[in-house]
This record gives sequence, structure tokens and C-alpha cells, in this order.
Amino acid sequence: MLPIAIDAMGGDHAPGAIVEGAQRAVADLGVPIVLVGRPDDLADLRGDLDVIPASEVIAMDADAGASVRRMKDSSLVRAAEAVRDGKASAMVSAGNTGATMASALLRMGRIRGVARPAIATPIPVPGSTPTVLLDAGANAEVQPAWLVQFAQMGAVFARERYGIATPRVGLLSIGEESSKGNDLVKETHGLLADPAALTASGATFLGNVEGRDIMTDGVDVVVADGFTGNVVLKTMEGVLRTLVRSVFEALGATAVAEPAIESLMPLYNVLDPDQTGGAMLLGVDGVCIISHGSSSATAIVSAARVAAEMVEAGLVDRLRVAVAAG
Amino acid sequence: MLPIAIDAMGGDHAPGAIVEGAQRAVADLGVPIVLVGRPDDLADLRGDLDVIPASEVIAMDADAGASVRRMKDSSLVRAAEAVRDGKASAMVSAGNTGATMASALLRMGRIRGVARPAIATPIPVPGSTPTVLLDAGANAEVQPAWLVQFAQMGAVFARERYGIATPRVGLLSIGEESSKGNDLVKETHGLLADPAALTASGATFLGNVEGRDIMTDGVDVVVADGFTGNVVLKTMEGVLRTLVRSVFEALGATAVAEPAIESLMPLYNVLDPDQTGGAMLLGVDGVCIISHGSSSATAIVSAARVAAEMVEAGLVDRLRVAVAAG
Repeated sequence: MLPIAIDAMGGDHAPGAIVEGAQRAVADLGVPIVLVGRPDDLADLRGDLDVIPASEVIAMDADAGASVRRMKDSSLVRAAEAVRDGKASAMVSAGNTGATMASALLRMGRIRGVARPAIATPIPVPGSTPTVLLDAGANAEVQPAWLVQFAQMGAVFARERYGIATPRVGLLSIGEESSKGNDLVKETHGLLADPAALTASGATFLGNVEGRDIMTDGVDVVVADGFTGNVVLKTMEGVLRTLVRSVFEALGATAVAEPAIESLMPLYNVLDPDQTGGAMLLGVDGVCIISHGSSSATAIVSAARVAAEMVEAGLVDRLRVAVAAG
Repeated sequence: MLPIAIDAMGGDHAPGAIVEGAQRAVADLGVPIVLVGRPDDLADLRGDLDVIPASEVIAMDADAGASVRRMKDSSLVRAAEAVRDGKASAMVSAGNTGATMASALLRMGRIRGVARPAIATPIPVPGSTPTVLLDAGANAEVQPAWLVQFAQMGAVFARERYGIATPRVGLLSIGEESSKGNDLVKETHGLLADPAALTASGATFLGNVEGRDIMTDGVDVVVADGFTGNVVLKTMEGVLRTLVRSVFEALGATAVAEPAIESLMPLYNVLDPDQTGGAMLLGVDGVCIISHGSSSATAIVSAARVAAEMVEAGLVDRLRVAVAAG
């Protein structure tokens, strides 16, 4: 397999945690890696890893479109070019999300027939496979036909990533009846209810689902516009953060703190975003993983593992087939 | 004070739990109550409580608009009429949410100048006052000017309900910068950034906030369209339900289950929706509380208490002033 190109300069803890994660992915998992970034910054960190040189770094809060257009020698743009040029099999970045999307879109291009790429984010579900939520933020304004493609791509991803033979797709709304929702959802519901819509993706359409269904084993793929999806994702992050802190504080003040907290560690690990492998940009002509800005070395190991798995599963070709048929 | 009209027939546990809650509100809090419902069904339950007779019951899953138009002798319609006719000071229902809104809107009417009423739902925040989220589901499609009114009304509610002198209002979006969001949010941001918009509500505009800010003490009022707000509310419910169950299961299997779970009860009570007093329909010309369909007797006690407090605070007149000035 061609190496996974990891943007060594992107993320709150770059380059240290990123390169450490890359080293561990090679040593522990045997995943081939090439770093992308400033050779001088990486000289003392890279060890045996190859480096694709890139002189510029797109800041975490920079304007995505303008940065990608102007900073042609940035680590993000060079990582996407490495995939396009057949020097890498996938890209991973914990940097500026918008710039990661723009780099992948502009350099790799879209899969033929895809109207817009979407961000697919795995939502952990205790005791079950994660639920794939998409679009988690790539497209704040969407059209019904795009949501149908998100459903098709999300189903393919759920099957390849989690081995779900017949993914159950739900449309995020505010009531189960097809009459519930905003105009976008009502129109999309009609399109997804056509049995032909999901045939090539091997999925079934559950109809509308609600926010309370996402973190359950009742649905495998939840489709939403990128505004709603991103709000949902960050709402979940906020509730989890508040609850985890509150629970640990309450237990920490008791005489049984140690065994009580110990018993919660398996649950904590299920919910830990560092374990999910990051979000995937579906619809571009290559594997592109968008890791959280706060990614630790462990998160990068997970992302490299998932990238390698998706390359070996032929994810992009499977997405191509599902979208072409739809 | 005129009595609070409680729809005795609405809710998953009606009429038993509803009437029990009404009895407790009278006995424990001294709140005057009148029940609304079928006299025969309430004869054995009502005790000393007066009953406004209503022969019909709108089912939990009935079409809201059609039911309210056709079932003129339903408990929901009669409860709203009691407020309109000066026989009750407020209405409370755990029944069909859409029909509760429609009854209140059609019988009480809107406050002059209000474009659309909105549902304001308190989101519990451990260690702080709740965050008021609105619109939590009344309006799936909205206009920017309506969101400005939601901000004004939500701020007045936060002050009267939680004593927050200068409520901080945030606009729910997918990034803090004013350039982030969908078209609706970007246009609304411009309107709320006008210092005059919130002057009469005594509030300050924080700018955009994200989903992760809702359950923190960083914001007092979060404004959203009713589709996004309802999705957020149900997402939070789902995450809380999954987490609470998972935590109790993990702790329950340990040798220290009893003291560990005991230490979490204060947190559990903060998050318990039965304690919040329910959601409030803001913008109709009367106090109207929409309780959760699964309301227990305790939830009805909380709702009756909040209804009485909002009547005594003159909430509707304060909303009238804030909206007229805006």
C-alpha cells in the first residue's frame, strides 16, 4: 500500500503529537506513513519517516478558501496533491477543517456525479457500532438531491467501516411522520422513500429519525444538512463534556472514588473521540480523514488505522458505484 | 390569583398523575388550581378541586390543527378559553404539544406585534442557572425578524424565571465568527448586532454560539429556528438518557454501587426534566406551559409552581413591552 500522507503541521498539538502518533502507527500497526510539512520543524522528530516538504502552514482559524488558493506550498495542499499524484493512498489532517476540505476538493476533485462532498462523523453508541452522522458541517446550505447522495455515501461508509451489511438510514427531523420537518426534510423524505434511491448502496430507509435516536442502536446512518449536523455534533460534545466532568467530580468527592471511576473507564473509552478515528470527507476522489483539532497522538494512530482500512476496502470505488447508480 | 387551569386529560399518565400533581401543588405550594376535563373521569380523583367540564380529549398523536378546529369541547381548547375569559390565570398541559400551541394561539391570541410564538425550553446546567433554548419546536420554518423576537422574548423569560439581570443572548450557529452559519443565521446576526434590538429586553448579544455552549454557564438564552432547536433538544435528551443508563449500569455492577450512585443523585436531580417546570409558549396572550408528554405528578407540581410565578411576575405584560419596543 502507498503511504498515508499525514499533515504534520495541522492541529493544536502539532507537530509533536502528530508525529508521535505517526511513529506509533508505523511501529504498532505497520501502517506506512509519509509526513507532510516543514523539513526543519520535523528534522528532530521524524525518525525514519519520509517527509514531503511543504514550506507553509495554514493556521487553524484562517479563511479556508483564500488560504488554499494562496498557500500552494502549504502542508494541507501538498498532502492532497500527494494523493492526487499517486504518491500517497490517503490524507489525514487535524488542521483547519475548512482548509482540509478545500484542499481535498480542489486537488483530488470530486467523485464523478457527486454534487457536494459531506463530512461523515462516527457518533459512539455504548454497546453497539457507532452511528454515522453526515453532513457534519461541510455544507451549511443544501438541496434535497444532495441529501440523497449523503444517504448513499453514508451507507457505503457504514458498511465498509463497521461491517453493517444492510445499513439503516434515517433522515434527521422533528417527528417520525413524513409530514414532520422543514421544507428541505419533507422534500428529501419523498426522494428517499423511492425504493431505487438506496438500492445500489445496499441500505434501507427508516424514514425520519429524531435527535434522541442518534446515540442508540436503532439507526446506522443519520442524514442532515451540514448546519443541523454540525450543531448536533457540537451539542453532543458539549453534553458529554459537561456530564463526564460532573460525574467525575461527584464520584471524586466520595470515599469510593477509585473503584467507582475505574468502573466507568470502559464507557469513557467508548465515548473518547480519540478512539473513533476522526471524520471522513466522503465524495472527494481519495480517502481524506479530518481529525479533531485537539487530536492527541492516540487520535492520529486511530486515524491512520482507519485511513489504511478504508484504502484497503476500496472505499472510494465503492462510493463511486453507489453514487453512479443513484 | 386566579387558578391555574390544568388539562387533566393530557399526557401519557393522564388523568391519574396529572390530578395527583395538581393536588400536591395545592397542598404543598398553595397554588390555586382548576382541572379541565371529563367530569366522569375525574369524579373519583378530583377531591376538592373544581373542574371545568370538557367532553373531548385530543389524542397525543392527533393532527394538531384539525383537532383544535373540530374538537371545540376538548380539554385543551377549554383550558385556553378559561385563560381568555378571565377564569384562569394560566394553562398547563402535558398533552399533544402541537394542539396545546394551536389552542393557546387560537383562543388566547398573540401578543400585539408578535409574528410567531416560540417554545422556550430550560436546559439544565450543573452548577448554574438553566440556559433558555428557543424556539424548541413551534416553527420549523422561520424568518430572521422572528428570530429577533425570539431573542427578545427569551431574554425577558430568562430574567423573570431565573432572575438574570442582564441575560446574555447567543445565536446558535456552526462557528463563532459572524460569517459562519446558514443564510438565515447570517442575516439574523446582522439584525441582532444592532444595539437597539435587545435594549428593551435588557439583554446583551454575545454573537454566535455553538451547540457545545448550551449546557454551560457561558450563555443564558440560545436562539434558533424551531427545526434546529427541536433537533438539539431531542439530541440532548438522547445523550442524557444513554449516558445516565450507561453510568448507572457500570456503577451498579460494582461492589461500591450504593454509595457511588448515591453521590450522583444531586446531579441526576438537576438533569431530571420533571424538575424544570416544562417549556413555556412565549408570545401568546397568556401564560401557557407545555409539559413533557411523559410528565409525572412531580412534573405537574413544578409546572404549576412556574405558571404561578410567571403570572405573579407579570410575564406577559413584560413580553408585550419588550416586543413593542423592538
